[in-house]
Amino acid sequence: MNESDNNLNIPTYDDVLAAHERIKPYIHQTPVLTSRFLNELTGAELFFKCENFQKAGAFKVRGACNAVFGLDEKTAQIGVATHSSGNHALSLSYAAGQRGIPVTVVMPRTAPQAKKDAVIGYGGSIVECEPSTSSREATFAEVVAESGAEFVHPYNDPRVIAGQGTCSKELVSQVDNLDAVVAPIGGGGMISGTCLTLSNIAPQIKIYAAEPLNADDAARSFKAGHIIADDAPDTVADGLKVPLKDLTWHFVSNHVTDILTATEEEIVDAMKLIWKRMKIVMEPSSAVPLATILKNPELFKGKRVGIIITGGNVDLDALPWMNN
Amino acid sequence: MNESDNNLNIPTYDDVLAAHERIKPYIHQTPVLTSRFLNELTGAELFFKCENFQKAGAFKVRGACNAVFGLDEKTAQIGVATHSSGNHALSLSYAAGQRGIPVTVVMPRTAPQAKKDAVIGYGGSIVECEPSTSSREATFAEVVAESGAEFVHPYNDPRVIAGQGTCSKELVSQVDNLDAVVAPIGGGGMISGTCLTLSNIAPQIKIYAAEPLNADDAARSFKAGHIIADDAPDTVADGLKVPLKDLTWHFVSNHVTDILTATEEEIVDAMKLIWKRMKIVMEPSSAVPLATILKNPELFKGKRVGIIITGGNVDLDALPWMNN
Repeated sequence: MNESDNNLNIPTYDDVLAAHERIKPYIHQTPVLTSRFLNELTGAELFFKCENFQKAGAFKVRGACNAVFGLDEKTAQIGVATHSSGNHALSLSYAAGQRGIPVTVVMPRTAPQAKKDAVIGYGGSIVECEPSTSSREATFAEVVAESGAEFVHPYNDPRVIAGQGTCSKELVSQVDNLDAVVAPIGGGGMISGTCLTLSNIAPQIKIYAAEPLNADDAARSFKAGHIIADDAPDTVADGLKVPLKDLTWHFVSNHVTDILTATEEEIVDAMKLIWKRMKIVMEPSSAVPLATILKNPELFKGKRVGIIITGGNVDLDALPWMNN
Repeated sequence: MNESDNNLNIPTYDDVLAAHERIKPYIHQTPVLTSRFLNELTGAELFFKCENFQKAGAFKVRGACNAVFGLDEKTAQIGVATHSSGNHALSLSYAAGQRGIPVTVVMPRTAPQAKKDAVIGYGGSIVECEPSTSSREATFAEVVAESGAEFVHPYNDPRVIAGQGTCSKELVSQVDNLDAVVAPIGGGGMISGTCLTLSNIAPQIKIYAAEPLNADDAARSFKAGHIIADDAPDTVADGLKVPLKDLTWHFVSNHVTDILTATEEEIVDAMKLIWKRMKIVMEPSSAVPLATILKNPELFKGKRVGIIITGGNVDLDALPWMNN
């Protein structure tokens, strides 16, 4: 454990247990799918935990629901807020809608209309900012100052990490004797929840994080031993562009076996392979684990490997291979 | 029952029961998925029986396996043959591969390479013909004359119909109190199997067939009271272009409540809606039931409705909305 961890509010496995009880009425226990074709291709036994079938289309609803339903009544009535143009925005809007409390999402005005429509569809309010960090932070500060809303960070929040930890808790109850779990890494919320749960209930399972080579800040951080944050990396795996923060770095640096990377082409090929053979719609980010497994077969051959399919919110009119 | 039925080899529900025992080791019991969004949109409770997750990617593997595994050893060793450029070709190849017997598929030389590759991948041999009925029939007759292979028709075969009947047998064991089942209709194999099973074990369930307006020969047959076959109708629902035959007409004319149609645009919209909200990859043909339900809400409002998602073998590089 790093010395700086002393100041962190690190969630415990009891928080995961409490989260699971709290959020069960609002989430799905998502299915685990297998593919004989992909098993033969990799020489491993792969178990795909399908959070693309989750409420709001992504695992993020676990952490968002845990944060929203854990608020005391008075705080809840004031509402919650976040900044996100992705699945956390949808998930927090869904969670707040389920509790019937206000939710405000700061989104860049350039965010896809489909994402804005989805937030509004779940009952969220959008405040637009310019597509820059400075504008986003200034706009968000105004929103919170005016409304007093509770900030729910997309990943660097103990409530969110405890919520995400319920995913691998389900996975190990659905699949026996896993040797490894591979999950995508962006800000590190899912990986941190996975570390939190597995280090407590199945510490023998190796945890691999899978990252786009084009946004490999976590892999470089892991090697360097401290957080390296990139400015605006560009990758088709649009959920994985954000950097690690102190809480998620705590889990990554203490519990992850390795961080593996894949090129853009490898990610798109793996995505298409999953769509074609498994008949499921999932995001580019969710294809990074399979891409890294195909690239590092020696690590996984003969092993039982859980893969987190993190989400399924993809723009069907702009699939990555449409540009090929 | 029509008088002409006297000459038909009509399968019974005992054949469905025997088929289910015979094919269980080679098929999946596919899951039934639901979508709160689509329930709210239609005012009905929809239960999607996901044969897109079936072996070889389509329900056709049920009938193909029943035919292949029902053969006596001597006949089986000579092999099976069919003509098809679609899911039946893949399914028969899969079934024959599982039994370890030869299979020959006559396919038009213009069939997509991906379909040919899939047949070969399952161990099938392809004999190419010109893309015309006359060439196909002549080529197929040669194949059978030379090899003595057992012909397994894609749908007008009692073994195939009994096999397809196992799908709705599973469905009623997975979902209680269905009011109706809606399935696509092309040649009528799936609908006939559905009629065979439901008329025996759940005759109160209404059976609707869903057909592209551009290939509405079954709907016109149903109204006219006799088979009308169209020459080469053109629809995005490429699995539904073939006409009814005597065996499938028997079931359609005796047990179907109605045949509903949808336009090409309605089919593509419904397909995209299912991909987007349910995160599953399925074929245009499989979207016709939802398209007809959205078009005829009064028939289904407040009802519990089973929908057969017939298959998931779609060309990801040529999705129908890519041309829009």
